[in-house]
Amino acid sequence: MSTSDSSGPAPRRVYFLSNRTAITAETLGHSLLAQFPELRFAPLTIPFIDSPGKARKIVERIESDARQTGLRPIVISTLADEEISAIIHQADALILDPFDRFLPELEQEFHAASVHESGKSHRISNPTLYESRIDAIDYALIHDDGATTKQYSQADVIIIGVSRSGKTPTCLYLALQFGIRAANYPITEEDMDSEDLPRHIKQYRNKLFGLTTDPRRLARIREERRPGSLYASLEQCRKELRAAEQLFEQYRIPYVNTADMSIEEIATKVVELAGLQRLSKPVLKHVDE
Amino acid sequence: MSTSDSSGPAPRRVYFLSNRTAITAETLGHSLLAQFPELRFAPLTIPFIDSPGKARKIVERIESDARQTGLRPIVISTLADEEISAIIHQADALILDPFDRFLPELEQEFHAASVHESGKSHRISNPTLYESRIDAIDYALIHDDGATTKQYSQADVIIIGVSRSGKTPTCLYLALQFGIRAANYPITEEDMDSEDLPRHIKQYRNKLFGLTTDPRRLARIREERRPGSLYASLEQCRKELRAAEQLFEQYRIPYVNTADMSIEEIATKVVELAGLQRLSKPVLKHVDE
Repeated sequence: MSTSDSSGPAPRRVYFLSNRTAITAETLGHSLLAQFPELRFAPLTIPFIDSPGKARKIVERIESDARQTGLRPIVISTLADEEISAIIHQADALILDPFDRFLPELEQEFHAASVHESGKSHRISNPTLYESRIDAIDYALIHDDGATTKQYSQADVIIIGVSRSGKTPTCLYLALQFGIRAANYPITEEDMDSEDLPRHIKQYRNKLFGLTTDPRRLARIREERRPGSLYASLEQCRKELRAAEQLFEQYRIPYVNTADMSIEEIATKVVELAGLQRLSKPVLKHVDE
Repeated sequence: MSTSDSSGPAPRRVYFLSNRTAITAETLGHSLLAQFPELRFAPLTIPFIDSPGKARKIVERIESDARQTGLRPIVISTLADEEISAIIHQADALILDPFDRFLPELEQEFHAASVHESGKSHRISNPTLYESRIDAIDYALIHDDGATTKQYSQADVIIIGVSRSGKTPTCLYLALQFGIRAANYPITEEDMDSEDLPRHIKQYRNKLFGLTTDPRRLARIREERRPGSLYASLEQCRKELRAAEQLFEQYRIPYVNTADMSIEEIATKVVELAGLQRLSKPVLKHVDE
């Protein structure tokens, strides 16, 4: 998807709307629009649409957009509140809302009415879930980059790889999204020379997961940190990655090549290949009415 | 949503399926199921369904589930590959897939075919986007908990609040999800006694954003860290939060009470109230065929 700053025909305005964070609408919307890579879109996310007044202002904005561009805007929304949803539906736009489409089918399947959580309802967060994510984040921060190895017995997974192979973002994402306790440990030149696993991690072989990447990409990332250094040279990157991959193979450590992957994909692969448990989605809440 | 470990009637099996990370299917699925708080579900996420063979195994599993529980399973999926989608549709389940429902409408609206990204297609990640997220994560880690204040001029936002009010997870989420450079700075007792903003942050008043919470909740979280301490006492938490809120009011610093909010909601509120720019969604990619 290209955004409005490229040349070519006018981009289509796309709104991601929600009475909550709009993360679901945004995630879904981008997945759908990515199926039209030749087209250009101008996305705009508006969260917390929790009053009829706010909804009416957005309808005005959508219609003003339509007049200006001569193109019908696209709205991808998750509006649980029926009153607000009805107001948004007055806009002359293509409105795609999985709540509209799927809730009636689920109601029929379950023989039960959905609550249509409204902006006024009192939502109760899940403190246990919140706290287990916070614990996992604390764990990841304390155990980043081999800073301490004392509580490795409590790790769900220990990510290993050379400097700048993506260990830290992977561990943080595992903690934030899945509540998984992930430590990470850098593989250094000394480890490579010894052709053995570093002693701090050797006893936790079953928890290890390796990351590797493409030497050119690694060199580019390192070059931004330390321009012109040996550390950033393509030759050095090749050598380190080759040695790391040999270690992974030798000790049968599962690993992935992260070169073409997003942080989400890397983290999901780790969960899958290491046989870890995803925490129930953190945004999930009961609705109290 | 309750899971299978509670008592009561048998939970309904729900599958979140995707040929990619399944994060979209999972996020959407939890939003939908949260509208039925009285029902019990047994969710199972299966990512990377990228071959007909894998899809057929999942169909067998769904049907075996249905036989065992006597309840039709629910499938919430984002299957872009038409062959794989067709196989999954053979299962006797309620299948809700926003790709099925919304792509035809978008194709009609755009007068363009969607690419139906297949497992075989060569996906190109967006290196610039990847790197700006990594930069933001590095920034958040270096500037966590007031560790250094040197590059505050480069911060998009500086989160302030008392110890354990949620600053660190908020900053990490802002970095990971939105590519926002977020520093955080703790408000300590000394700052409160001076009734003034700490000098390190005073010159960046326009970038400040405050977090506060409920004293009981804060006491509970602190109690887990340092049981029986003054730090964790309800009286101390009350005093600190009151002083922090007074600072926020005095200097007109926008702030939110995080007590009932998920990390996603806190981060989205910060983006909204501080007028920050969300990065284009990181999972977005071109498809090359």
